[in-house]
Amino acid sequence: MTVHAMTDEADDFEMIHGTRAVLSLLAGKWSVDILYLLATGTRRYSEVFYEVGEISKKTLTQTLRSLERDGLVARREIPAVPTRVEYSLTPLGWSLTEPLVAMYEWAAQHLSAADPHDEQLAA
Amino acid sequence: MTVHAMTDEADDFEMIHGTRAVLSLLAGKWSVDILYLLATGTRRYSEVFYEVGEISKKTLTQTLRSLERDGLVARREIPAVPTRVEYSLTPLGWSLTEPLVAMYEWAAQHLSAADPHDEQLAA
Repeated sequence: MTVHAMTDEADDFEMIHGTRAVLSLLAGKWSVDILYLLATGTRRYSEVFYEVGEISKKTLTQTLRSLERDGLVARREIPAVPTRVEYSLTPLGWSLTEPLVAMYEWAAQHLSAADPHDEQLAA
Repeated sequence: MTVHAMTDEADDFEMIHGTRAVLSLLAGKWSVDILYLLATGTRRYSEVFYEVGEISKKTLTQTLRSLERDGLVARREIPAVPTRVEYSLTPLGWSLTEPLVAMYEWAAQHLSAADPHDEQLAA
């Protein structure tokens, strides 16, 4: 759907605020990584830590809490010794993968591999 | 398209980096506002300044330069006294409104008006 078609239904203010709300949900440096990882299946804390890469445990814990608070990720404690903690996407988290994929598709179509933003992001 | 369908074609790394590249393009506080505004038509500098709202001239100039450098916005000087400067979306900028609208649509469907992020954003 295009902006022109949308503006019949919603005013600019709503569109700006809705879009910014999504950007705010994704603002943490690692949120996207964690959402895509959990989209491939439930993970234990240690698995998320290992698979996400360079993240520190402190940042990982903060990011997971923030995603949980926003209702995108569910945390489940499994009674065991030691206690096992698993993370998975909630239905809301699943639904958010749609705009994520829309962003990826745009990038795949329009940004070259040598795009300077890739280097910024890697830094 | 879902994440599952996509992962047949692209690996997680590509999806994460593509998505983050788009987030990076939209990182400035006012980028989304300016892109939606220019999606409704070409504007002079003074019109952008007036219509975007609380933005300072310094931040507006920086944001427009950044959007121009990223190829999303075109700047055109019109010979006149005083010189008139107009801004419009490039074809790349137009194409980016698709994922922007995908984000807005998700927000409209899934976030309530009382969502705490709205207040964060308004602050």
